[in-house]
Amino acid sequence: MDELIYWAGVAAVAVSAATGVLEAGRKPIDLFGMVLVALTAALGGGTLRDLLLDRPAFWIADPTYLVCALAAGVATFALVRLVRLPPNLFLLPDAIGLALFTVVGTEIALAYEVPWLAATFLGVVTGVFGGVLRDMLANEVPLVFSSELYGTAAWAGALLYVGLGSSGVAAPLAAAVAFALIVAVRLAAIRWRIRLPTFRARS
Amino acid sequence: MDELIYWAGVAAVAVSAATGVLEAGRKPIDLFGMVLVALTAALGGGTLRDLLLDRPAFWIADPTYLVCALAAGVATFALVRLVRLPPNLFLLPDAIGLALFTVVGTEIALAYEVPWLAATFLGVVTGVFGGVLRDMLANEVPLVFSSELYGTAAWAGALLYVGLGSSGVAAPLAAAVAFALIVAVRLAAIRWRIRLPTFRARS
Amino acid sequence: MDELIYWAGVAAVAVSAATGVLEAGRKPIDLFGMVLVALTAALGGGTLRDLLLDRPAFWIADPTYLVCALAAGVATFALVRLVRLPPNLFLLPDAIGLALFTVVGTEIALAYEVPWLAATFLGVVTGVFGGVLRDMLANEVPLVFSSELYGTAAWAGALLYVGLGSSGVAAPLAAAVAFALIVAVRLAAIRWRIRLPTFRARS
Repeated sequence: MDELIYWAGVAAVAVSAATGVLEAGRKPIDLFGMVLVALTAALGGGTLRDLLLDRPAFWIADPTYLVCALAAGVATFALVRLVRLPPNLFLLPDAIGLALFTVVGTEIALAYEVPWLAATFLGVVTGVFGGVLRDMLANEVPLVFSSELYGTAAWAGALLYVGLGSSGVAAPLAAAVAFALIVAVRLAAIRWRIRLPTFRARS
Repeated sequence: MDELIYWAGVAAVAVSAATGVLEAGRKPIDLFGMVLVALTAALGGGTLRDLLLDRPAFWIADPTYLVCALAAGVATFALVRLVRLPPNLFLLPDAIGLALFTVVGTEIALAYEVPWLAATFLGVVTGVFGGVLRDMLANEVPLVFSSELYGTAAWAGALLYVGLGSSGVAAPLAAAVAFALIVAVRLAAIRWRIRLPTFRARS
Repeated sequence: MDELIYWAGVAAVAVSAATGVLEAGRKPIDLFGMVLVALTAALGGGTLRDLLLDRPAFWIADPTYLVCALAAGVATFALVRLVRLPPNLFLLPDAIGLALFTVVGTEIALAYEVPWLAATFLGVVTGVFGGVLRDMLANEVPLVFSSELYGTAAWAGALLYVGLGSSGVAAPLAAAVAFALIVAVRLAAIRWRIRLPTFRARS
């Protein structure tokens, strides 16, 4: 089971790297810049979490993440030159990655005795901040700020995880339920185009 | 007195969160994205200071800040939908927040035995970096880089605080004088539209 | 020799500060904002490296860097008001700075027992991230992502440094060769306008 979570995390890192390559492909960014954007997208969220918790950055402690992010970035680059990727190819893996990063991030924060509310935001940071940094590097307003229930799904899942845990539900079960909630909310929001309202400030 | 400074700091965090909501309201950013921008504006400066000093992030160590930033963000969101806020509503509280963050940031840096010049910049970082990050997230050149003596007032106050302290003035008095200087310079600059020159590089 | 490397590092910081001033001069950024952009350009890469390695930020530990970055920023500001700087004045010093930062960054990361691949990226971060942050503050897609073999030269040099070191070459010699490679690749790329391909994603 731990093995499964580990490799799912590696896969999520790889998917995020792929989204970084696609984003960089819309900008005047060369191949190596693309690699850097891909690595930022893949590793940025977890790195910020680790800095805030004063623990070693996960990709420095374990080189597997870095190698897989690099490989995924280069593979995506090669692939998009050969074939036209279906536009929604990454939606499902990305939702799974979001859910996994968020739940694992919340879990780690709680293990460091972070108060529960801050822990849920560290979970959200883990889940969405890589994408935020990716879009900042590409000089765009971060997509996750207006996407179909992206951060919202993550936060709901993190809150559920904390709530279940404090109600005495065993951690693995709480994690599984929260994970399922995030994936389900995100996919449902994409399917039925559910977005939170934006608003125009009057001032 | 310490009590007063503590709650003034919490209030400053709340005001910064409100400015984050107003900024996000001019962009394609949804309600939860707005919450994230508000939290970044409110907590970003102090967080960077804490990372650089290798101390626990203040909002993780004490959840009050996070709760108040969240509450202020949501309240501002509700308020701007109901009434038209006067455009300069936040100018005074924001000036107070800038002064408070800067003086407290400088004070903390000195307590960590940071050399005085670096300590003044950590004070400035505490005071202005939340606003810088807020504008970077909204894909704008940071407003504090061209606003009426914003960072400048903060740096002048930080330098004065250090100067008074090394002249033997008691820390609370030095802090009060530096605080007053920052608020006064900032408000005077707004009142009489005093700005530092920008320049066009010729190269 | 160590003395030489130390002062070359200080000079590289000063050159990066100058590039920050020139960049800020193309934007609505005032004099103090310009100072902050200059400091970010000069100190940002090494600071991120230090945060990731959980060591004290180099400019907090040793005030020389901060003083020289400030002085270089102010001097550049004064200079560009007086004379038209030749557009390629900074290309050589910047290439030297890139090479130096990258090799020193990789060296420090290895000294902290970072695995070799991650160490090369920490070298690249040290070399290019100041420029990336500078351009993010100025609301531009980072120039180093499309410049003539900028990050690419850095990474090649970092890889060479690691490769020579693990082949038993003495560290100072490995550093000198890697340094020369980065400067040579970067200058040759500028001279003959060699760039990595960018690409348009088809999806």
